[in-house]
Amino acid sequence: MNKIIRVNMTTRETRVEDVPDRYAMLGGRGLTSNIVNDEVKPTCHPLGKNNKIVLAPGLLSGTSAPNSGRLSVGAKSPLTGGIKESNTGGTFAQKMARLDIKALIIEGMPEDEEFYVIRIDKDEVIIEDAPSEVLDGCGNYKAVKVLNERYGDEVGMALIGPAGEYRLPSANISFKDPESNLRSAGRGGLGAVLGSKGVKAIVIDDTDTERVPVIDLDKFREASRVFSKALLDHPVAGEGLAEFGTDVLVNIINEAGAFPSYNFTKGRIEHADNISGETLSATIKEREGEGMVSHACHRGCVIRCSQWYADKQGKYITSGFEYETIWGLGADAGIEDLDAIAYIDREMDDVGVDSIEIAVAIATAMEGGLIPWGDGKAALEIVKQMAEPTPMARIIAGGCAIVGKLCGLFRVPVVKDQAIPAYDPRPIKGIGLTYATTPMGADHTAGYCISGNILKIGADIDPLKKDDQVEYSRAMQIGTAAVDSTGMCLFVYFGIADNPDGYQAMIDMINAQYGTALTAEDVDKLGEDVLKVEREFNKQAGFTNAHDRLPEFMEYEPLPPHDVVWDFTPEEIDEVFNF
Amino acid sequence: MNKIIRVNMTTRETRVEDVPDRYAMLGGRGLTSNIVNDEVKPTCHPLGKNNKIVLAPGLLSGTSAPNSGRLSVGAKSPLTGGIKESNTGGTFAQKMARLDIKALIIEGMPEDEEFYVIRIDKDEVIIEDAPSEVLDGCGNYKAVKVLNERYGDEVGMALIGPAGEYRLPSANISFKDPESNLRSAGRGGLGAVLGSKGVKAIVIDDTDTERVPVIDLDKFREASRVFSKALLDHPVAGEGLAEFGTDVLVNIINEAGAFPSYNFTKGRIEHADNISGETLSATIKEREGEGMVSHACHRGCVIRCSQWYADKQGKYITSGFEYETIWGLGADAGIEDLDAIAYIDREMDDVGVDSIEIAVAIATAMEGGLIPWGDGKAALEIVKQMAEPTPMARIIAGGCAIVGKLCGLFRVPVVKDQAIPAYDPRPIKGIGLTYATTPMGADHTAGYCISGNILKIGADIDPLKKDDQVEYSRAMQIGTAAVDSTGMCLFVYFGIADNPDGYQAMIDMINAQYGTALTAEDVDKLGEDVLKVEREFNKQAGFTNAHDRLPEFMEYEPLPPHDVVWDFTPEEIDEVFNF
Repeated sequence: MNKIIRVNMTTRETRVEDVPDRYAMLGGRGLTSNIVNDEVKPTCHPLGKNNKIVLAPGLLSGTSAPNSGRLSVGAKSPLTGGIKESNTGGTFAQKMARLDIKALIIEGMPEDEEFYVIRIDKDEVIIEDAPSEVLDGCGNYKAVKVLNERYGDEVGMALIGPAGEYRLPSANISFKDPESNLRSAGRGGLGAVLGSKGVKAIVIDDTDTERVPVIDLDKFREASRVFSKALLDHPVAGEGLAEFGTDVLVNIINEAGAFPSYNFTKGRIEHADNISGETLSATIKEREGEGMVSHACHRGCVIRCSQWYADKQGKYITSGFEYETIWGLGADAGIEDLDAIAYIDREMDDVGVDSIEIAVAIATAMEGGLIPWGDGKAALEIVKQMAEPTPMARIIAGGCAIVGKLCGLFRVPVVKDQAIPAYDPRPIKGIGLTYATTPMGADHTAGYCISGNILKIGADIDPLKKDDQVEYSRAMQIGTAAVDSTGMCLFVYFGIADNPDGYQAMIDMINAQYGTALTAEDVDKLGEDVLKVEREFNKQAGFTNAHDRLPEFMEYEPLPPHDVVWDFTPEEIDEVFNF
Repeated sequence: MNKIIRVNMTTRETRVEDVPDRYAMLGGRGLTSNIVNDEVKPTCHPLGKNNKIVLAPGLLSGTSAPNSGRLSVGAKSPLTGGIKESNTGGTFAQKMARLDIKALIIEGMPEDEEFYVIRIDKDEVIIEDAPSEVLDGCGNYKAVKVLNERYGDEVGMALIGPAGEYRLPSANISFKDPESNLRSAGRGGLGAVLGSKGVKAIVIDDTDTERVPVIDLDKFREASRVFSKALLDHPVAGEGLAEFGTDVLVNIINEAGAFPSYNFTKGRIEHADNISGETLSATIKEREGEGMVSHACHRGCVIRCSQWYADKQGKYITSGFEYETIWGLGADAGIEDLDAIAYIDREMDDVGVDSIEIAVAIATAMEGGLIPWGDGKAALEIVKQMAEPTPMARIIAGGCAIVGKLCGLFRVPVVKDQAIPAYDPRPIKGIGLTYATTPMGADHTAGYCISGNILKIGADIDPLKKDDQVEYSRAMQIGTAAVDSTGMCLFVYFGIADNPDGYQAMIDMINAQYGTALTAEDVDKLGEDVLKVEREFNKQAGFTNAHDRLPEFMEYEPLPPHDVVWDFTPEEIDEVFNF
């Protein structure tokens, strides 16, 4: 990948640039975070003309490497005020790679209030007026149809929904998957940044392009085979996720007593069966029709953790129906019915908001008395209103931290103003360290310590004890920053954590593609460097160790059933980033 | 003043403590900021049980010193997340001083959701249930009446309105003035802190107490005479403020082209005459009835800048009708009618919210399309709704920063999430440095550089130039922190800035009261020390120099008519606090 495309929305200029040498062996998160840190003033307003948004495929994207089609999106976050990297499936990353585009940088902002479509193909980059029928409240599902009609079914697409047009803090960016359904770069309000730049959609057309060239194809194929086998042989990566989706975690985390419920007041619920992965899978099978238990969010995925969830008549409701969303609405907000949750999930995708942030915001609003506990109808109605936002819809779309302020609550589950997801940090201490210290704000994917704390993959650490957790969260965050730079899905970790051959195969693929001789140490170093760059941006933006803290109530409110509190000292937490 | 009263709302214990030696020569802001820094964990949640709220009279409060009846209130702010000192008139400070109480510290929080009244007299401190008729939407005017009936007209009173009960971020604390009207510790959401502690009101009864003892009464009386004369002889302190109120500034600041209008897009408006101090004064006189041009917010005030504003029938609408409120609604929100503004001001007092924060939030919401520009009726309706908050009322009561986020704006006039008041920092550069650097968040009273930049009192500095501004803001902030510790109203500065005898008289009064031998240098040192303590708290709470910045749009959006931008470099700004 030899080009950087730069689009200036103030001047409407588009430019093709060479890739600076220092970016040559960066991809995905490593590249977006470096460009943001190099080019964006850390104290700029996230919705002003000086923020930039950067999209980059991973190092391995566009090759035949399994699970290498993730796209990284980076910017200064309007939700956290810090650097943000959010990654997603869909077809965009692979098409960028085939077009030889290492990064797309969108900067400036139009003087008018209009919305535009950026269209990229092998010959040109064009800024066009967005068709009026996709604006002003049009949902993402319809917008994709309209844009498919205009640009062709096979194009890749990034787009914002109405929430992004209104620049609401939890607006996401949606990406077309192979069947024209939606995947999201969900967290941190990146849809608001794209909205502030007047970009409704980016359409990418890789017609007449080739697969990404690989220097040593034989070595690549062999490594790819070993890697693929490692994934498929693993009980989680190769079977569990395909059969039950990520929602397989409901019973596991509920059983562990770490399933935050009713705004983080309980760690276990009675109605877990209603919303578990087992129930999800059985329901899809029973209903038949358009339902599908296992589905890939991007070409080349062998894990296939996504699914299509259909209604009683077998009609498609939603896909990419993830554990964290189902947890947020089902347990944290106490909505006990899986169909009700599915309709809200669909609506969140349609208006274009982060389903974790919104689910947790809804639960917090329930504690604050704005919505009755467990009321799925009220929640659905509010999410629908985000298309033309009522004051209540704006409040919820503001995210959990703002809901907490407007309800005068001190029990507000956020770190750096981003909602804490689906794993309570009191009984799973490793993940708490990740939430506290990642530059991203509370984010389970930044260092998924559930793996060694609960699933016992890659490590075996007592989740209720502090021992070894600091080192573990550090290692997981470093490893994740590296994997996020390859374009690989994070779930490949399950397949390679306990399989040295699988891990080596990932590195071999990179070396075969680029003609390099990277070692495992080099990959670790890459991860460390990415984290350093992100921390540096946040430091310049005004973050200190005081922001690397969990909500205070977790320090004195024990979570049943284990009745444990968050008991790491500030000094211990600050040891996570000792480099 | 020899006692500290400590009230624990968790245990319902009340305690009388001795004053530690290190607090002996601290009062007002100096004392509240020190106690907050000593006792409150900087990273605590502002609405949680670990925040504390501290009330303290000034060093000279309770004596016959002119204008010495201001009360300081301190806590960690739910609006800014930093330390907060807000001060107010009313009768509370003088009664505390007569009761020999140097500080009242309220800590903990009740387990129930009930509201209480803390009653203090010379014999005891009692926590009682709040009468139900003052709760659940009852406005402050009625609540004062009900509590007067129960406790007697002569008691002092601090109370929160419905906004404080709901712990909304802009909730203020109201204080009874001598005629049972309302004064406010307005800024920073301190009413939400008191509300979080379940305290609806604090009633203070100084029956059977004496004036505060003074060691050298003759010296005190002479100094007091000189001081009083300095105030009365000054054209602003002795005449202008009494005749036109603080609203005298409308024409002055508008003429200077620094009158931020229509959400800080213009520096001068056409309709200034509608809302000027001259019009205000003439209207009050013309209407007669209960109107009153000049009125004192506390006993012993010789400046008398407050007034009673009456309607066409001569019926009282509001008092303490300040320039900043009239500016916010009249110019920033473009509400062109003084009566409309007066009714909104009354309503803000009645529900108990900061009139600056709300006025600026309304203007920002107008830019965001939530309220039509200049629509006083809509604004009044929303403020009324704060008594039982609708979603829209919550948004506005969330303050300007939250309104900006929920409207997806980058033009959001806040520093440290507190709204910028009535003087645009682009054409009055000195005040911009104060907004940027004061530990309080944007606050004109923290170092009122309007004085030397525009009024030419105490200094003569070109407001459009950067020369001398850093030194000037520093000196004003130091001096203000000292004056705020005496219990003196800030307006005494006008009388003593160019009058060395007046300034010396203030110090002489302190020395006569306490038997000390403080010099002007000692007073400066006190001011410096207060600022250091406040900065230290903020640093521990997570603030850095990156937070000492004005909104970015002011760096590239010139303000007409002077068409100037904010052009201090970060390095220059950081020189304000060089100690």
